Amino acid sequence: MFVLGPNRYGKAETRVVRVTKHGDAHHIKDLNVSTALSGDMADVHLSGDNAAVLATDTQKNTVFAFAKKHGIGAAEDFALLLARHFVDSQPTIHRARVAIDEYGWDRRGGHSFARNGRETRTCVVHYDGERSWVVSGLKDLVLLNTTDSEFWGFVRDEYTTLNETRDRVLATAVTATWRHAGVSDWDKSYEKAREALLTAFADTYSLSLQQTLYAMGSRVLTDCPEIVEVRLALPNKHHFLVDLSPFGLDNDGEVFFAADRPYGLIEGTVLREGAPGAGPAWE
Amino acid sequence: MFVLGPNRYGKAETRVVRVTKHGDAHHIKDLNVSTALSGDMADVHLSGDNAAVLATDTQKNTVFAFAKKHGIGAAEDFALLLARHFVDSQPTIHRARVAIDEYGWDRRGGHSFARNGRETRTCVVHYDGERSWVVSGLKDLVLLNTTDSEFWGFVRDEYTTLNETRDRVLATAVTATWRHAGVSDWDKSYEKAREALLTAFADTYSLSLQQTLYAMGSRVLTDCPEIVEVRLALPNKHHFLVDLSPFGLDNDGEVFFAADRPYGLIEGTVLREGAPGAGPAWE
Amino acid sequence: MFVLGPNRYGKAETRVVRVTKHGDAHHIKDLNVSTALSGDMADVHLSGDNAAVLATDTQKNTVFAFAKKHGIGAAEDFALLLARHFVDSQPTIHRARVAIDEYGWDRRGGHSFARNGRETRTCVVHYDGERSWVVSGLKDLVLLNTTDSEFWGFVRDEYTTLNETRDRVLATAVTATWRHAGVSDWDKSYEKAREALLTAFADTYSLSLQQTLYAMGSRVLTDCPEIVEVRLALPNKHHFLVDLSPFGLDNDGEVFFAADRPYGLIEGTVLREGAPGAGPAWE
Amino acid sequence: MFVLGPNRYGKAETRVVRVTKHGDAHHIKDLNVSTALSGDMADVHLSGDNAAVLATDTQKNTVFAFAKKHGIGAAEDFALLLARHFVDSQPTIHRARVAIDEYGWDRRGGHSFARNGRETRTCVVHYDGERSWVVSGLKDLVLLNTTDSEFWGFVRDEYTTLNETRDRVLATAVTATWRHAGVSDWDKSYEKAREALLTAFADTYSLSLQQTLYAMGSRVLTDCPEIVEVRLALPNKHHFLVDLSPFGLDNDGEVFFAADRPYGLIEGTVLREGAPGAGPAWE
Repeated sequence: MFVLGPNRYGKAETRVVRVTKHGDAHHIKDLNVSTALSGDMADVHLSGDNAAVLATDTQKNTVFAFAKKHGIGAAEDFALLLARHFVDSQPTIHRARVAIDEYGWDRRGGHSFARNGRETRTCVVHYDGERSWVVSGLKDLVLLNTTDSEFWGFVRDEYTTLNETRDRVLATAVTATWRHAGVSDWDKSYEKAREALLTAFADTYSLSLQQTLYAMGSRVLTDCPEIVEVRLALPNKHHFLVDLSPFGLDNDGEVFFAADRPYGLIEGTVLREGAPGAGPAWE
Repeated sequence: MFVLGPNRYGKAETRVVRVTKHGDAHHIKDLNVSTALSGDMADVHLSGDNAAVLATDTQKNTVFAFAKKHGIGAAEDFALLLARHFVDSQPTIHRARVAIDEYGWDRRGGHSFARNGRETRTCVVHYDGERSWVVSGLKDLVLLNTTDSEFWGFVRDEYTTLNETRDRVLATAVTATWRHAGVSDWDKSYEKAREALLTAFADTYSLSLQQTLYAMGSRVLTDCPEIVEVRLALPNKHHFLVDLSPFGLDNDGEVFFAADRPYGLIEGTVLREGAPGAGPAWE
Repeated sequence: MFVLGPNRYGKAETRVVRVTKHGDAHHIKDLNVSTALSGDMADVHLSGDNAAVLATDTQKNTVFAFAKKHGIGAAEDFALLLARHFVDSQPTIHRARVAIDEYGWDRRGGHSFARNGRETRTCVVHYDGERSWVVSGLKDLVLLNTTDSEFWGFVRDEYTTLNETRDRVLATAVTATWRHAGVSDWDKSYEKAREALLTAFADTYSLSLQQTLYAMGSRVLTDCPEIVEVRLALPNKHHFLVDLSPFGLDNDGEVFFAADRPYGLIEGTVLREGAPGAGPAWE
Repeated sequence: MFVLGPNRYGKAETRVVRVTKHGDAHHIKDLNVSTALSGDMADVHLSGDNAAVLATDTQKNTVFAFAKKHGIGAAEDFALLLARHFVDSQPTIHRARVAIDEYGWDRRGGHSFARNGRETRTCVVHYDGERSWVVSGLKDLVLLNTTDSEFWGFVRDEYTTLNETRDRVLATAVTATWRHAGVSDWDKSYEKAREALLTAFADTYSLSLQQTLYAMGSRVLTDCPEIVEVRLALPNKHHFLVDLSPFGLDNDGEVFFAADRPYGLIEGTVLREGAPGAGPAWE
């Protein structure tokens, strides 16, 4: 017969904005919170008996209520608070996963803000009633180097037509996630890790995007001792040099066509040697 | 020091359209192909030495060339062909993952077609030089039942405000993936699995979306002996009954607000008992 | 000094789903309704005095209440009902624009439905207290011909590199809107106009997408005497023949790369001679 | 019979990136260029005769070639250059419309950049062989005030349920376009107009979004004498105060739900008195 395998359920993308007012100076936190719970869920799947189910509507309510009761500091702390609450307060819930996207705003006055449109800060927290795992990260950080990138010496088979190049534009949209060994000063850690990614991308003389990826991951581990593992997904956003010779023009790295699809996709992991096991951190 | 962990690289989203002409009757296959390779990739990450790298541009070329040389039948077969080619022809490549999305077209004449806009058919194939794993699936299959859905008897804690209901609209956008035991008649298997999902959704008197999920997965396993595991992600696309009482109107399941966010998200797996191990199938 | 120019305000994208139950057979209408009102709005702009403003929240409520009170038949009729209500009931509102997108569902049982994913049906209605204007249409109707399309004889200047072709794939995503002379059987008119577009695209031996556009518009006017003007926006979704010669393969219209950007964009209008003036119909 | 009405054709969304190198300091301009031409196009529509057609592929080539030959300064200048070229060099082309979106990058080093993710700068230029019209603008500038916004005193009819409020969050995503009287220092004008929009949003004590809109438009006209007309589309991105009373919590402007749909949409125009006619500027 059939068996129920891994499962979880929750409320995805609760968009909560928390305003804090210190006199005339207001502050905002703008989050997209997704909660997912697991536990004694055989009955609800097999017979529709909801006795073990904390409704997803309740999970949403809890996000809003906790935003009021506890305020929102670092997204990681808010996620941990929620994860612990669900597991510790509900006997049928044994594991919680809370994922948060955070959008940044620039101050334009005491109570006026403009979305900065930079990359989105992310975190995913797991809690199983005893231990917790925290992964922080960012996505949609779009970077481009106009030079210091080569690509040559690759395999040539019967389907290879690509020319070798000693100078190309290298562009990507970084999705990065990094696993913490324990509890950190999340905001400070984030700023350091972000800066490490940006700096490594800018400073690496690149012979391949894989090399750049490894340099970025290593730099995060070097600069952030609290981090034990970095995962990166780097699309190679191709900028093709346009052939202007039909128009009697040369093109010495000046005019590029920014292509959409297909794109290269380089994915990789850099770990601190002897890093503790990841458990469910990446699930 | 630092260690290179799991990694892969490839060309994502190569959009290939293959036309086959039998006299006046033309046929089209419209695919979005993503290839990803792994193998002896330490050097390229650590030093930028590309001697082991089959360029992503070459992978793209191979997709187009194979579309011509071998034609395109079932997406699974085309994916297997590509995966085996990369691993078997390149000594440095030890594993390949090929993912394909397929878009459907309705015939409007001998050589005229209209995109049917139905769900997207998907597959992911892995090959390691000896074995292959095939997962088929679909996404964006949007379903709605106007009745035969209840939700009650769930946990009530201090943050619970949701009313119990004995009649509600149940709507979802199905993402389903299913793992095959071996080689199948992929097209026939797909049609049976798809029909099983649709029928189970329509026929299940639902006490929770989890119950519906399990019923859908079980139906696929029942109707398709070649399939050993089904994974489903079902967003609960909330249709809220609008309170019309301020206008002196009742609303007996007639007028709904289709909400965007947040949404419930129910994820689960149904396995055939004694199913063989999944290996890298879901990676 | 400064002058307030054209303005309007309203509630955009109210997602209303209307269920009608005839015994065991249920029916659904799934709409996205946007209302916009104009009138005596100088004060609200100049001083924030809202005395003339029917709140956008009220407009949304009216959509839901009317869905209950009047049911929903053709989207055009529902739009007219709303437009007339706002203008006729509010002395400060002089003009209304109601735009509706309608999503189609296929029946899968007495009360079970699957989104058909076809193109979206659209309409825009204007009412000024005396007259009304109705524009119907569709968007995202994706069509492709595998042959019967040429492109040659075009201007060649110093920046022209394109080769002439006597056989190419022609693909587009139709956005079409058509203006009615008066009141029609909207559903019947829609089906005829849609069929005219599809048939003209399939049947036209095309020497340019402009020619196809004109043929499509003309066919609508020919088949639908109730329609006086057709506007079409046809992106030329380029399908480039892949050069397979480096691999020793020919490519006689068999393997294409479906490109994203840039794309051609052909926009044009076909009118019935002596068509009445459009008034605000296209605003 | 039928008549060909207004029409135009061109190449949309040519993504050109122009790199300029001054020693070690590189600069980039990142544009999305759409060209559209009109003229003696009866034949191509009626019979497919392309003798008057400058192919859209040629238009794309011209964008790339001009990026090399002339460099890219302000987007408006590049658009004017292209528009004039097409009309002045082709006897069959009588009018050109060139629209450009520009994406901003922050410098991270001599040749390293990060997309700033701020709003997109836009322009639309028309040229008819004699005169030109320039509209500049921006889109996706997301702003939020945490206070100094009220909404009360609006019409109450039988479908009105909204409570009056003396303090709410006001948020919007600005789409603004402004028409120039003649030639400007486009970059300087843009910075002034952008700053005027931001400042007016932050400084206006708002009794309605319409009032804020008018204040924003007026501020642009006040600060930028070179601009004669401003058009604004301001979605009211509702931030609903969450009712926390079921949990025994008050909510004094602290916790909000950021809703997606429906949203208010306020559109309006502010003109300088005696502004010259707009001609085709807004088409």
